[in-house]
Amino acid sequence: MELTSNKQPRSALLACLLAALACAASSTPVHAADPLPSWNEGAAKKSIFQFVAKVTKKGSPDFVLPAERIAVFDNDGTLWAEQPMYFQAFFVFDRVKALAPQHPEWTTEEPFASVLKGDVKAALAGGERALGQLVMATHAGTTTEEFEKSVNDWIATAKHPKTGRRFTEMVYSPMLELLAYLRANGFKTFIVSGGGIEFMRPCSESVYGVPPEQVIGSSIKTKFELRDGKPVLVRLPEINFVDDGPGKPVGIQMHIGRRPIAAFGNSDGDLQMLQWTAAGPGPRLCLFVHHTDAEREWAYDRTSGIGRLDRGLDEAQARGWTVVDMKTDWNRVFGYEKQ
Amino acid sequence: MELTSNKQPRSALLACLLAALACAASSTPVHAADPLPSWNEGAAKKSIFQFVAKVTKKGSPDFVLPAERIAVFDNDGTLWAEQPMYFQAFFVFDRVKALAPQHPEWTTEEPFASVLKGDVKAALAGGERALGQLVMATHAGTTTEEFEKSVNDWIATAKHPKTGRRFTEMVYSPMLELLAYLRANGFKTFIVSGGGIEFMRPCSESVYGVPPEQVIGSSIKTKFELRDGKPVLVRLPEINFVDDGPGKPVGIQMHIGRRPIAAFGNSDGDLQMLQWTAAGPGPRLCLFVHHTDAEREWAYDRTSGIGRLDRGLDEAQARGWTVVDMKTDWNRVFGYEKQ
Repeated sequence: MELTSNKQPRSALLACLLAALACAASSTPVHAADPLPSWNEGAAKKSIFQFVAKVTKKGSPDFVLPAERIAVFDNDGTLWAEQPMYFQAFFVFDRVKALAPQHPEWTTEEPFASVLKGDVKAALAGGERALGQLVMATHAGTTTEEFEKSVNDWIATAKHPKTGRRFTEMVYSPMLELLAYLRANGFKTFIVSGGGIEFMRPCSESVYGVPPEQVIGSSIKTKFELRDGKPVLVRLPEINFVDDGPGKPVGIQMHIGRRPIAAFGNSDGDLQMLQWTAAGPGPRLCLFVHHTDAEREWAYDRTSGIGRLDRGLDEAQARGWTVVDMKTDWNRVFGYEKQ
Repeated sequence: MELTSNKQPRSALLACLLAALACAASSTPVHAADPLPSWNEGAAKKSIFQFVAKVTKKGSPDFVLPAERIAVFDNDGTLWAEQPMYFQAFFVFDRVKALAPQHPEWTTEEPFASVLKGDVKAALAGGERALGQLVMATHAGTTTEEFEKSVNDWIATAKHPKTGRRFTEMVYSPMLELLAYLRANGFKTFIVSGGGIEFMRPCSESVYGVPPEQVIGSSIKTKFELRDGKPVLVRLPEINFVDDGPGKPVGIQMHIGRRPIAAFGNSDGDLQMLQWTAAGPGPRLCLFVHHTDAEREWAYDRTSGIGRLDRGLDEAQARGWTVVDMKTDWNRVFGYEKQ
């Protein structure tokens, strides 16, 4: 059957068109459910809805083509928790323990000896150099496939010391809703994190719905090699890129090649990403998650060693960016909480 | 009107369903037009169709989820021409001329003096060092936005010395069809080129349908700065990454984070990309475009300075990769040819 056939009786054609229109209309409910149910009504939630309405309204001067609806999210402290230390640090310490049998020298060599004794504080007493040694010992020297396997194995079993939950359970329900809501409105969502790019990728799709090619992070150098004729990428003990602070706009330009219109962070390490996003023309949504809920999560900001939010808080207030008060703006933090 | 309403007479409901089904069916013609009309029937075209049929057939052991249908394309010599020199080199020489009034010293300083005299050969007599000077003088020192504008201005007006056509007209029609055909079958298409990432991005979407975030290339370092409170990314005269040869699998891993299942190139600089693609499990499509048509394009391979295809040709033959003979496999090379 062809709609344009001359043999088609006019009335049947009309019926077909009407039916098709009606069928299409019936799939759009008049009262759509709230796409952000974990967000309490308030200024933060309102700013999100207003921004999305503006940029998606066809014919409006603020309309943004779907291809240009780029939204960037920090990971640690923005999409999942980051206390009492970055989750990747737990991975580092667990990997040192797992690799120790192959490194008998570590029982006496710092910072490894302290890690093996369970003394994190002593292990990190050596500052950046000690941290660098730990990161390289656990992140380099393998192929990309071997490293991915070590992350997958760890994430499937490791548990957070305070909550006893898997780390992938400690993602914020309101932010998962926000990711899905933006994607449903034609946005492409990216993770832009100071964390390791290859540490985040193995579970970014299953946890956040963000495919690996939309994950930007810090990295070490890799090298292409043929091993017995089989091509591998070997991870080298050398920093390639630090995707933090002023590095975030650099990473965004390198990977995305256009300026985001929405940016979400929680610390001063995200400030330049929000500045870069805010400086483009047209409507912009810049949002900081402010950790104010010591009961359901953690409360920290201006003086915290992890996830300090100080200059960012001032700038958000001065520029009228959205600041989410976790305690009052979110009726649920983690998916496992009782409702 | 709701399909499920109890008030809906059964016959009207049935009519609606039938009409909707018929309307849906009418949009899928029984005899679909050939998606690759510029390709002659032959082994190359057949290998493409067979591969796509395999990986898209649900329930087949070779089925690949759409999210994993990653296809990577070299640019110079694979998507557009590259003779008598890479198109980006024309940009470099034109930019030197455009910037010369701001650099009076260039009239006597090599390699700039030779470029200004129109003597490309003499300009490049200084080898890599001279080339590096020319690239940095024309690619660094600006903000990312200024550089993008200089590329856009150039590409809108510059013409190829042999064909007199705009460079963006010198893309291969068969490859445009292939890009579109793969995307229509759920593939995500990426450009992975030795050329400059920010040189390609301004027109990758309009010319190839590839958005900037799916362009991978060579790059110089950039730095985030606040200039009078306005954030900018400044392009520095320092190499960041060379996306050529063994750099291609490294760039693919950095940007995409998963192994492609299809790779398209034309020179030995693409060999490692094809090796990396071929080494994954399941069906793979690895294809070299072989420049065999001196009449409609250029004929070159094993001994060419630009786009040499030597080791790659041997490996393609040994491994049974697809080799496109431009002369016999393509009935049209450029879109402007008379049919």
